[in-house]
Amino acid sequence: MPSAMKMSKSSASLRLGKVPEDALRRYVLKFVGKRRRDVLLPPRYGEDAGVVETSSNRIVVAVDPITGARELIGWLSVHINANDVAVCGAEPRWFSSCILLPKNASINDLKVITKQIHNAAKTLGIAVVTGHTEVAPYTTSPIVIGQMIGVLAMRKIITTSGARPGDYILMTKTAGIEGTAILANDLEERLRKMGVPNSVIKDAKNYYRFISVVKEALWLTKHAAVSSMHDPTEGGIIGGLYELSRASGCGFKVWRESIPVSKTTAVICRAFNVDPLKLISSGVLLATVKKAERNILSKIGAKIIGKVTEKRNERLLIDKTRTVSIDEPVTDELWRILQ
Amino acid sequence: MPSAMKMSKSSASLRLGKVPEDALRRYVLKFVGKRRRDVLLPPRYGEDAGVVETSSNRIVVAVDPITGARELIGWLSVHINANDVAVCGAEPRWFSSCILLPKNASINDLKVITKQIHNAAKTLGIAVVTGHTEVAPYTTSPIVIGQMIGVLAMRKIITTSGARPGDYILMTKTAGIEGTAILANDLEERLRKMGVPNSVIKDAKNYYRFISVVKEALWLTKHAAVSSMHDPTEGGIIGGLYELSRASGCGFKVWRESIPVSKTTAVICRAFNVDPLKLISSGVLLATVKKAERNILSKIGAKIIGKVTEKRNERLLIDKTRTVSIDEPVTDELWRILQ
Repeated sequence: MPSAMKMSKSSASLRLGKVPEDALRRYVLKFVGKRRRDVLLPPRYGEDAGVVETSSNRIVVAVDPITGARELIGWLSVHINANDVAVCGAEPRWFSSCILLPKNASINDLKVITKQIHNAAKTLGIAVVTGHTEVAPYTTSPIVIGQMIGVLAMRKIITTSGARPGDYILMTKTAGIEGTAILANDLEERLRKMGVPNSVIKDAKNYYRFISVVKEALWLTKHAAVSSMHDPTEGGIIGGLYELSRASGCGFKVWRESIPVSKTTAVICRAFNVDPLKLISSGVLLATVKKAERNILSKIGAKIIGKVTEKRNERLLIDKTRTVSIDEPVTDELWRILQ
Repeated sequence: MPSAMKMSKSSASLRLGKVPEDALRRYVLKFVGKRRRDVLLPPRYGEDAGVVETSSNRIVVAVDPITGARELIGWLSVHINANDVAVCGAEPRWFSSCILLPKNASINDLKVITKQIHNAAKTLGIAVVTGHTEVAPYTTSPIVIGQMIGVLAMRKIITTSGARPGDYILMTKTAGIEGTAILANDLEERLRKMGVPNSVIKDAKNYYRFISVVKEALWLTKHAAVSSMHDPTEGGIIGGLYELSRASGCGFKVWRESIPVSKTTAVICRAFNVDPLKLISSGVLLATVKKAERNILSKIGAKIIGKVTEKRNERLLIDKTRTVSIDEPVTDELWRILQ
């Protein structure tokens, strides 16, 4: 895990507009992730584009912003976008960043972000190929918009919409991973006041370490008859299942009990009276497969949580005592708590 | 020119977070520019990535945000990014958008932006392939971050750094195009109070129509021995020349008189006591060529404004009465006026 960002006021503050050349050279153009040979034109002063050489003629593109005063904003922007590319069945390779800083930002704030991008990209074997950095009017907190390009691992494109009736629904890790980290980082004091033990808060704050699904998504792509994959963000596991259903035109039956929730997440969620299944869950891989062979499940640590059904409006979350129908998009629990 | 954006309060306002499915389907997923056959996975509900098929194995990527309460924010985001790709010698093909709206935004605000993106993309033969739309905390005005992927028109990559001593420096159109439009749109009332005629203001407001350099950049790439191209944004023509010099390690001698400034730009600049050569100039193409044949110049309406020289720190702007040395990066006049 990279060093977190604290908005410091000690170092020189930046002026509105493009970041000056010197700062660009020292704090942006040096932090470009893995130096890949297929990058023909890397980020350079005065160049407004990057050029890469693809080994495949099918490329996958994803764009996602990280907003909010998150301490790991640069690091997350690489991982979140890498996830979106990987769940398409593609290996993420080339990242572009757009860093927007608020008026009072310092050079140090910029450096923290670019170093995080650098480290996350290196971990995943990704090169930063171009970008834009500016102190922007109309932003009151840093925003990093990441864009990732990848190349299909096999020839097939895996989509959210590919789920078919009869498929098993798998998930990896535990529900609400990202939300657990956000709540613990942003509302640490409140949790402490509510009597949540320090050890739990500390563990929860580090849940960002589980955020990548690249490895498991690529493994499934290569080794299993996977019909769809999805990275459940806003709305959590249930939101992700809803999107999967709407995109594929199929229904689902999922058993609440079969969805793993970690002890740490359970404690944090109980404190805020939050449903962990409706809590933002980047880091979890949702996938549908024709056959759920035991070796596949164990290889990526996946659990079967339900099945895809034929009726497009049948979206059932089955509990011990009752069955809930998911009839509308799920509003993330996070918005309710943070507002 | 597309319809401009007025932040309306009449239509329903959007909630924080992802835009709801219905609005997404009606106002985002329908406006995807040109329907290109090489888009294998276009923007769809529930899919977080797009997939395209390239005809070349060298692809060019550019990322640029449009910040500020600009009325043509969606339209500009396509053109500005298309320019960055085209000056690399590549044909822009696939666009991704990240639309960040402030808390009070309405569905209508979103629609205006996506329609602008759609129209600009269609004009240039570009498809929108993926994107992200959210009402984001920490933004007080809409921001559109565009990302463009293109394919080299010839095999060669044209960079800002490619300029060589002895090359002629060309520019198209007139200095300060984008800045003229911004000043006239954002400070219309002030201009009127200063006695600038309505006809001039009206003409200046429409200067955005000159913003694209895609045609001329691709024409030069295919037909001339062009050694570098650059799209001068912040800092205007002089800022662009400074960047070209820093990137290439060469100097330049440029004659102020040879740089065309339109009457409209001259009037607007005089009102604010602004140097049109230091005013943001998207829409102008700066290029360096070994030979400046007359047919090349006339074909793209270019003028020779100076020459590339050997000494890396020789950056001279030559006037009738004096010679000015450009020793530091140029701060755009716009920032001074708008602040």
